[in-house]
Amino acid sequence: MRGGGADVTTRIGAPRPIFYPGDAVRRVKGDKLLRALESAGLDGVLVFKPEAIRYATDFYVKGFRRFLDIEYCLLMDRRGRHALAYSSGSDDYRLPLTSFLEDTRRVSGRVDEWAPVIVDMLTDYGLAAKRVGYDLLPAALDVRLRELAPHLELRSAEAMWEQVSADKHPLEVDCIRRAYDVLAIGIRAGIATVVPKTREIDVAAEIEAAMRRAGNEMTPAITMVASGPNAAIFERVATERVIGERELVILDATAVVNGYTADTARTVLSSGEATAQQQDMYRTVKAALRAAIEAVRPGATCAEIDGAARRSYNASAWSKYGSRWATGHQIGFGLHGAPLVGPGVHEAVKPNMVMCLEPRIHVFDRPESGGVQVEDAVLVTDTGCVVLSSDVPYSEALER
Amino acid sequence: MRGGGADVTTRIGAPRPIFYPGDAVRRVKGDKLLRALESAGLDGVLVFKPEAIRYATDFYVKGFRRFLDIEYCLLMDRRGRHALAYSSGSDDYRLPLTSFLEDTRRVSGRVDEWAPVIVDMLTDYGLAAKRVGYDLLPAALDVRLRELAPHLELRSAEAMWEQVSADKHPLEVDCIRRAYDVLAIGIRAGIATVVPKTREIDVAAEIEAAMRRAGNEMTPAITMVASGPNAAIFERVATERVIGERELVILDATAVVNGYTADTARTVLSSGEATAQQQDMYRTVKAALRAAIEAVRPGATCAEIDGAARRSYNASAWSKYGSRWATGHQIGFGLHGAPLVGPGVHEAVKPNMVMCLEPRIHVFDRPESGGVQVEDAVLVTDTGCVVLSSDVPYSEALER
Repeated sequence: MRGGGADVTTRIGAPRPIFYPGDAVRRVKGDKLLRALESAGLDGVLVFKPEAIRYATDFYVKGFRRFLDIEYCLLMDRRGRHALAYSSGSDDYRLPLTSFLEDTRRVSGRVDEWAPVIVDMLTDYGLAAKRVGYDLLPAALDVRLRELAPHLELRSAEAMWEQVSADKHPLEVDCIRRAYDVLAIGIRAGIATVVPKTREIDVAAEIEAAMRRAGNEMTPAITMVASGPNAAIFERVATERVIGERELVILDATAVVNGYTADTARTVLSSGEATAQQQDMYRTVKAALRAAIEAVRPGATCAEIDGAARRSYNASAWSKYGSRWATGHQIGFGLHGAPLVGPGVHEAVKPNMVMCLEPRIHVFDRPESGGVQVEDAVLVTDTGCVVLSSDVPYSEALER
Repeated sequence: MRGGGADVTTRIGAPRPIFYPGDAVRRVKGDKLLRALESAGLDGVLVFKPEAIRYATDFYVKGFRRFLDIEYCLLMDRRGRHALAYSSGSDDYRLPLTSFLEDTRRVSGRVDEWAPVIVDMLTDYGLAAKRVGYDLLPAALDVRLRELAPHLELRSAEAMWEQVSADKHPLEVDCIRRAYDVLAIGIRAGIATVVPKTREIDVAAEIEAAMRRAGNEMTPAITMVASGPNAAIFERVATERVIGERELVILDATAVVNGYTADTARTVLSSGEATAQQQDMYRTVKAALRAAIEAVRPGATCAEIDGAARRSYNASAWSKYGSRWATGHQIGFGLHGAPLVGPGVHEAVKPNMVMCLEPRIHVFDRPESGGVQVEDAVLVTDTGCVVLSSDVPYSEALER
């Protein structure tokens, strides 16, 4: 069944989604999802998150209209069949021509109008009285679904998605490596721009433009360029602030290739030589990063890895200023993902997980001192880990 | 009450949110929200959408981590009091130093951990057994809230937010005008880059970098540069496609200033003179745009405005290729908003609404013919409307 696009009969060759990772990655993801559905004991799953829909179908969802509610709802069943409901008229053209999806159904409008379409999909796939998972289901829609399909057994599929996202196949790791290639180009461009009298937003413009030209598909997180006092409070964007002399400047950026994300941060000095204090802060954070990387091996818990980094701050003059929150996070398809590398997270890391580690010091009560953050990504191996972000340059002035 | 940030005692002067529109706009928004709460008959409202939280508090929420679930939950009551629950450790610093919020509470982690914190907030503000609205409440959290606060009367506040977003104060219109100034700079930079042998992503890089340097706070929608066949299917991103000779190229971009969004589209020719067919497509779309703009006046329904544009396609050789979906949308705080300017939308526009109108032709079954989209924004006045996007240049080659 083709919804609104039924009269789009001329295809431009075979459908091929844009930014397509290829048939091999497609098979890897499909197999993984079917296994996850089975091990979660679900007969099907309703997917609302744009990245998750792209993961399951390779269709490049827009998913950037944040003030609206739902734009897509994908139903996937245990046989790997897909039905997609969508609300944007432009997808009438895009779906037949740039997706593999055969069953697409257009929905007109607001939350209330989605429920009958979703129930129709469930009915057509024999799932209206079965156990079906969901990710980010809006409450108003949940209420209507339960009214219209009283025998539907809805349950959260959050844990299933976490597992799928965290367990990376080598072909997926290759995609992440390509995203880090793009990101390295961006950070290099940004570092070259960091000089006194430049504004933070000018640096961000260079980072983003360089990544775009290198093939960045989207910027999933706001690019951060935090100088001087903004580094001290971890301001998470780039502002119009003019960078001063000999200031610490944190660059934190993200890139996406084939849907796979890279995330890294570096701290550089805007000019001159580092003060003894700046040097000490930087070395403390680098020591914490090294300690965390060394702690990553199969079976190590996230809390242990976090603790390894945290001991570096706590043994330094900067204990009060060390990161209060998680030292890191899984990186996946989309942006972040559980598990966090933080205190109290007793989940162990496993081979094929990719974890970002980003210890930080922020001198929030003496903002002129600034702050330091350095972030690297590691792939967990059978015996330890390998760093994926090694092409992203560190600061020459601070590494001395 | 200050949550995790309780020991952040040194303020950098008075708190002043970044990208702050000023006290006058703050008062306008606050008054509007209190009136809306009262007319919706709500005692309070729980707000999850990042843009809505920024609207109500002026705190620059990050809100870009799309694969995660909730990052913030704001409670606002009928007395204009605010309490904010948040999950990111970096906000420990940012909230005391760059927001006006006095009651902030940190939440560790997943959906299940939010419910007790939200119930505490409701209890502290005397709302645990009152009528409270919500916007994008996840179903899993909804279930837990109803268990923990069985006398809480939860209901959707979607209509309330739509009304608040659509009714623009003149000070808010000024913010939108500034966003259009930024967007005009971006589109000019993009048009200057559109030449054969340039890739779509190179054009997007120029648009985005120029807007960043001009003060763009974020890019709420993916910048679209669609050339040749990509224009024919309304591909909604910029790809690595190399632009050819004498092709139609659609540029569709967005900018944000002080949280207010501008959205515009232009179609240009990559080189040479337009063919008779390209010229005819372009003139048809421009005639549709003019017809839509002329139809905008208080009391005109969205369906009527849409119909005025649609008659232009239907009377042309392009009737099959005219936009199948809404001709436009409200533009607001955040990106889009209801009402849509589409068939079947019988809501009338009112003074102080800002509407984007974007008629289009896409020759989906003869992709070499490309497509045309032109988008302008109008402010509804007491007698008609004024165009806000008039500084965004049209194509010289196609306007002849």
